[in-house]
Amino acid sequence: MQLQNDLLLKAARGEPTSRTPVWLMRQAGRIMPGYRRKRNQMKDFKHLLKTPDLAAEVTIEPVDLLGVDSAIIFSDILVVAEAMGLNYEMVEQKGPYFPKTIRNENDINTLRIAEPDSDLNYVYQAIRQTKSALNYRVPLIGFAGAPWTIFAYMVEGQGSKTFSNARKLLYQNPEFSHRLLEMITQSTIYYLEGQIRAGVNMIQIFDSWAGILSPDLYHDFSLKYVSKICDSITEVPVTVFAKGAFFSLESMAQLNCEVIGLDWNMDIHHSRQIIGPDKTLQGNLDPCALYGSMESIRRATKNMLDQFGPHRHIANLGHGVYPDTEFDKVKCFVDTVKEYSDVLSR
Amino acid sequence: MQLQNDLLLKAARGEPTSRTPVWLMRQAGRIMPGYRRKRNQMKDFKHLLKTPDLAAEVTIEPVDLLGVDSAIIFSDILVVAEAMGLNYEMVEQKGPYFPKTIRNENDINTLRIAEPDSDLNYVYQAIRQTKSALNYRVPLIGFAGAPWTIFAYMVEGQGSKTFSNARKLLYQNPEFSHRLLEMITQSTIYYLEGQIRAGVNMIQIFDSWAGILSPDLYHDFSLKYVSKICDSITEVPVTVFAKGAFFSLESMAQLNCEVIGLDWNMDIHHSRQIIGPDKTLQGNLDPCALYGSMESIRRATKNMLDQFGPHRHIANLGHGVYPDTEFDKVKCFVDTVKEYSDVLSR
Repeated sequence: MQLQNDLLLKAARGEPTSRTPVWLMRQAGRIMPGYRRKRNQMKDFKHLLKTPDLAAEVTIEPVDLLGVDSAIIFSDILVVAEAMGLNYEMVEQKGPYFPKTIRNENDINTLRIAEPDSDLNYVYQAIRQTKSALNYRVPLIGFAGAPWTIFAYMVEGQGSKTFSNARKLLYQNPEFSHRLLEMITQSTIYYLEGQIRAGVNMIQIFDSWAGILSPDLYHDFSLKYVSKICDSITEVPVTVFAKGAFFSLESMAQLNCEVIGLDWNMDIHHSRQIIGPDKTLQGNLDPCALYGSMESIRRATKNMLDQFGPHRHIANLGHGVYPDTEFDKVKCFVDTVKEYSDVLSR
Repeated sequence: MQLQNDLLLKAARGEPTSRTPVWLMRQAGRIMPGYRRKRNQMKDFKHLLKTPDLAAEVTIEPVDLLGVDSAIIFSDILVVAEAMGLNYEMVEQKGPYFPKTIRNENDINTLRIAEPDSDLNYVYQAIRQTKSALNYRVPLIGFAGAPWTIFAYMVEGQGSKTFSNARKLLYQNPEFSHRLLEMITQSTIYYLEGQIRAGVNMIQIFDSWAGILSPDLYHDFSLKYVSKICDSITEVPVTVFAKGAFFSLESMAQLNCEVIGLDWNMDIHHSRQIIGPDKTLQGNLDPCALYGSMESIRRATKNMLDQFGPHRHIANLGHGVYPDTEFDKVKCFVDTVKEYSDVLSR
């Protein structure tokens, strides 16, 4: 059966579209009323993550209520670390916390290459249920963290402004670092293959901590592995979103992927110039712009659409939507993209 | 009397030097044995800050032990906020914390333009004592935070990955934001004038949170005020270090300042190309490079010097030195700059 709305996939492949497709990173989260109700009823974020019924419900909610052009499976990039044998907790208001971290040979010996068919079956189950409930209305995006970003959490043990322990390891023990990155990469490739078999229509790689690496380190310790993952995916389009990696856009243009995500720091014209015409760009409104008035949101959104132009663009924010953003403001962003890009595309 | 070593000031002004000057951001800190001894003896970081004898001692220690080409006064960018009426604490392992924050008209009415001659006299006293003890060996750098960075802390109340409350205010109440930024700017100008009267030979403006703003917001809410400060300083050279503001290097090249600091994400050749030949560049080794072996530190430092070339460069890291860096590794960086740039300059 055919998707009723395949704007996202067409834009990703560079085919002409009647208007610009739009979705939001973290759309299945605190901005949605149903999500908030569910989260308030349970103590643990990970319960939501690991219960396919619930994960499918929160995945679909933004399609129903916001009218976005795609769903993205509700999950977390760190499930791969857990599938490799490193458990973590999600601490309210603070983010992920790993009681054990990976710093040396002994630590790495406790890890395994993930076997997602058993370890991450709950994600695949959520994907299948979501697909079935979506009933071909819009595409479903699957995702994974970039190996460097997963590595950063596994070594650091939690979020950090500098991730200096993770970066220290790159300098002090590059061989060890590459070994761990290889393990994460292989686990991620298996994991994404499973997501595609379960039915996702597109994949996004999140390199959330790209921006704390120097250009040389990013090239050697992150892009190399992102590139391997891109090469391994042939069935569906791939988006690479490397937050803060402005210095690497030229190299990223060579990746075997269809879409490059821009963060809100990246200048649209300049990025297009560097990346060239052969990739679709995704992004990049400042998530804080949605704190402004309706009028200012419409103005900023139109301004963004003007800069990207009507082709090879997937409208999104330049980062995940902030949890305290008002639903109506998010809807205003989505509606403005739909209405204004429809005019632009004529 | 003349400075015995004025390499820093010459390089800042673009005059030829026998070798590249070198110092490190946060050199007067945990990497120094004397500093650690003092800090371990006292509970409060701010006691060290507010006791001119002690501040002068820790300021001079890296000149004596590391052989850097400049001292930088031991202080904190947030003393300006305190002088405006907003107190803060420095929480061990966490950073600054403001019990009260500035979010609305009522809050701003509790603030005043700083009167640094009384409010910040302890800094001026520390500067005078440092100058006297340095006895013209090397220059002394004074500094302040950029208004946006001070604003970010005053609104947010503490460090944050996104400073979304501070950025929210820019969108929701731009007039209010400009009013607060004006107050901080005026306070900072008074503060820096006093530092110059007390004897500093150069000024650095730290815009630590530049990189979380979109290019447009950075231009309107940060660069504008940095520019005012630069225009107000005519007696000594000025360095502007806006971490993460890669997107603004072209505009920064127009600032009325002598030196632009680069962080470790910024490509050296590309930055020089954008900024042009008329400014000195400072930076930009990845602070994590100092976790590597001596050999790798020497290699990375030489590579950096090769890229900057022998003129209009002040060697430094691309961010403050991390507190757990070994003293000998820092010394290796300093010595390598001195030895290798001496060869390069011939």
